[in-house]
Amino acid sequence: MNIPEVNLPRVVVIGGGFAGLQIVRRLRKHPYQVVLIDKHNYHTFQPLLYQVATSGLEPDSIGYPIRKIFEGHRNFLFRLAEVASIDPEIKVIDTSIGILRYDYLVVATGSDTNFFGNKGLEDYAMPMKSIPEALNIRSLLLQNFEEALLTSNLKEREALMNVVIVGAGPTGVELSGAISELRKHILPHDYPDLDVRRMSVHLIEAGPRVLPAMSEEASENALQALKRLDVEVWLNTMVQDYDGRLVMTKDGRAFHTRTLIWAAGVKGVSPDGIPAESLVRGGRIEVNRYSEVRGLHDVYAVGDIAMMSTEAYPHGHPMVASVAIQQARHLAKNLIAKGKDREMEPFVYDNPGAMATIGRNKAVVDLHRFKFKGAFAWLVWMLVHVVQLIGFRNKLLVMINWTWNYVRYARDARLIIRPYHRSADANDTPRPS
Amino acid sequence: MNIPEVNLPRVVVIGGGFAGLQIVRRLRKHPYQVVLIDKHNYHTFQPLLYQVATSGLEPDSIGYPIRKIFEGHRNFLFRLAEVASIDPEIKVIDTSIGILRYDYLVVATGSDTNFFGNKGLEDYAMPMKSIPEALNIRSLLLQNFEEALLTSNLKEREALMNVVIVGAGPTGVELSGAISELRKHILPHDYPDLDVRRMSVHLIEAGPRVLPAMSEEASENALQALKRLDVEVWLNTMVQDYDGRLVMTKDGRAFHTRTLIWAAGVKGVSPDGIPAESLVRGGRIEVNRYSEVRGLHDVYAVGDIAMMSTEAYPHGHPMVASVAIQQARHLAKNLIAKGKDREMEPFVYDNPGAMATIGRNKAVVDLHRFKFKGAFAWLVWMLVHVVQLIGFRNKLLVMINWTWNYVRYARDARLIIRPYHRSADANDTPRPS
Repeated sequence: MNIPEVNLPRVVVIGGGFAGLQIVRRLRKHPYQVVLIDKHNYHTFQPLLYQVATSGLEPDSIGYPIRKIFEGHRNFLFRLAEVASIDPEIKVIDTSIGILRYDYLVVATGSDTNFFGNKGLEDYAMPMKSIPEALNIRSLLLQNFEEALLTSNLKEREALMNVVIVGAGPTGVELSGAISELRKHILPHDYPDLDVRRMSVHLIEAGPRVLPAMSEEASENALQALKRLDVEVWLNTMVQDYDGRLVMTKDGRAFHTRTLIWAAGVKGVSPDGIPAESLVRGGRIEVNRYSEVRGLHDVYAVGDIAMMSTEAYPHGHPMVASVAIQQARHLAKNLIAKGKDREMEPFVYDNPGAMATIGRNKAVVDLHRFKFKGAFAWLVWMLVHVVQLIGFRNKLLVMINWTWNYVRYARDARLIIRPYHRSADANDTPRPS
Repeated sequence: MNIPEVNLPRVVVIGGGFAGLQIVRRLRKHPYQVVLIDKHNYHTFQPLLYQVATSGLEPDSIGYPIRKIFEGHRNFLFRLAEVASIDPEIKVIDTSIGILRYDYLVVATGSDTNFFGNKGLEDYAMPMKSIPEALNIRSLLLQNFEEALLTSNLKEREALMNVVIVGAGPTGVELSGAISELRKHILPHDYPDLDVRRMSVHLIEAGPRVLPAMSEEASENALQALKRLDVEVWLNTMVQDYDGRLVMTKDGRAFHTRTLIWAAGVKGVSPDGIPAESLVRGGRIEVNRYSEVRGLHDVYAVGDIAMMSTEAYPHGHPMVASVAIQQARHLAKNLIAKGKDREMEPFVYDNPGAMATIGRNKAVVDLHRFKFKGAFAWLVWMLVHVVQLIGFRNKLLVMINWTWNYVRYARDARLIIRPYHRSADANDTPRPS
């Protein structure tokens, strides 16, 4: 690789998510050379992926070119690459574009969908952790509706219209709400010759309540809001298998659907070379309160991939953006301190609360002191998300789209740009493309 | 197929481009059942594809859902399908979703890229006639720059940065200008460690001038504007072959480039079943001045696919949007007249003029009486294009993007959402993805 040689210690950051960007930003103007590696050339604003999947936003307004974010940063390099492995002994990483040495390595690779080894789910369930995956869902939903028009088999037609979402965290709840709004406001106009009332939206959750990480009050309010949108919520229900047409649950229920969206689990994805004893449940990397990877020197992990246990969070911190950002900011401070031979400080998470939207005028917000819901919560949700988006143009585009969608009950990004073909469907009859 | 039976004569329109949409729109509220068939579920505003290819606009702002355009139209059906063949004897068409009968058939299938049978071009040159193809170009340009960073071979680095565009019609001219602006305003900031001055943009044209369909004055002005943008224009030059790395011309020149964009030829693409004697040069279908396909009854062709010769246009009309729209409008009128047993009228093309933009503040416009260029021409170009876009939201998004790009010298859609892999490159070293 063609990295200019400078005499600064080199910090290599793997992953341009919330944590990775934060580290790079905070190390600016400090005596480090920073190299950021990502497999995409853009940062993905993951909290709004579900709106891309449901035709409410175009993909380009939630992606932002990484090179543009750090335009003009000195001693900074971005490399579009995938990291295969690390060798902490000799302090190098092996990537798809060659070997790179580091002085300090920050693993901020985040998390990916976890199908828990279930082959049926891997083959047929739709994950939603990246923009291409969200676009696949957008295409599949629309393709299935086009196909539903063509069949005279009522069971098959319903399977094409039905959607099953598994996992009632914020992603699952927001998706169910958005798909339910598609059913209410868009699909009856697009498909007047289909009886859209026969379409069901099911939300399946293994635990006893939706939004399990929020307050019981928020869970209850979200559940009521989902019910008002005619989302069928199945609590204490675990999915056992899916063959592309039928979802089977452990308690013997069956749901006919050609669209199963899996938001029920994530796992850490770390490069080879992290010692097995430093990996814990869910593929996360165990770190101490300085984000140092257990058993390694000068290797750190922050964000979803890192499992840092504290008194308040004995099983690790929640895998959310605010933890990632705070850990990254804290690590940057510690690295700067280290460079000046000052003591590093242990991390303390300042929980800003949690929120989720269910749909038009419907959201729940848990703050330290206040819990609220409804239209005001929904405005707060929108404001917080717009503020966090990177770049004025993206903020503007998202706000215009939201205003348009709100005023006109519109979802105008319902385009099948790249038709989705399940590789496991190769033997099926070809779809229109 | 599940088409409701009604007792109206059925007009089947193949293709949702400018001509196809116009026919459907004009037949509204007239006693016809109209079925529109397209392989995409959206209309593509082709004149702005080059801005998608060059990261200036997001794809969703130049695509518009067809079902939404005709929301609330009665006696209208849209079907997402590809048409394989027609059988004019028994008045049916065979599609990817089944057999469909028609009373009147309108072929509005437009045109596709013509590589004139050259295998090297088919394998390695980039066409740009659809949104996925424009996105492929966007990805390839960006991937090549990422790759250019990694090589220490100067020749190879230049080949990765260089772009060759073949064909100096409006598409080729607009693309060269836009890529040249990327080189000037974006790439030096994104890639400070690359010497972007070594990047060349070549525009190759077989004829003696750029914009051959416009006035000599416009050609000359466009040529000067291209030169000011440091586009190297090669007139009277024909491309002979391309192997993915080296472009060879008939007069023995060679250009090293990994990106060849082919805007040098189109051909009509018509379903099987059109009699061979009705097909003319470039795969177009010969029609009379009533748009009736030669030798067939009740089969019409309009737009790019149709070759209608008149006194003013003995070799057929130009393959441009205004011809497509006027022919479609005229055919709709004739079909309505036919339904009332009135005489059909022969088509007369009212040429509104032509225009092309080269870049920031640079355009050329030829009207009946006036020819002009520069900043005013550029404003006219933008206005005309925004007005023609379908839907208020798309107009608004495009205007905001243009304002942003103008004020900030920005191109913020430079995202590699789906990396482009040339199928012919399968044996090459894998690119970062």
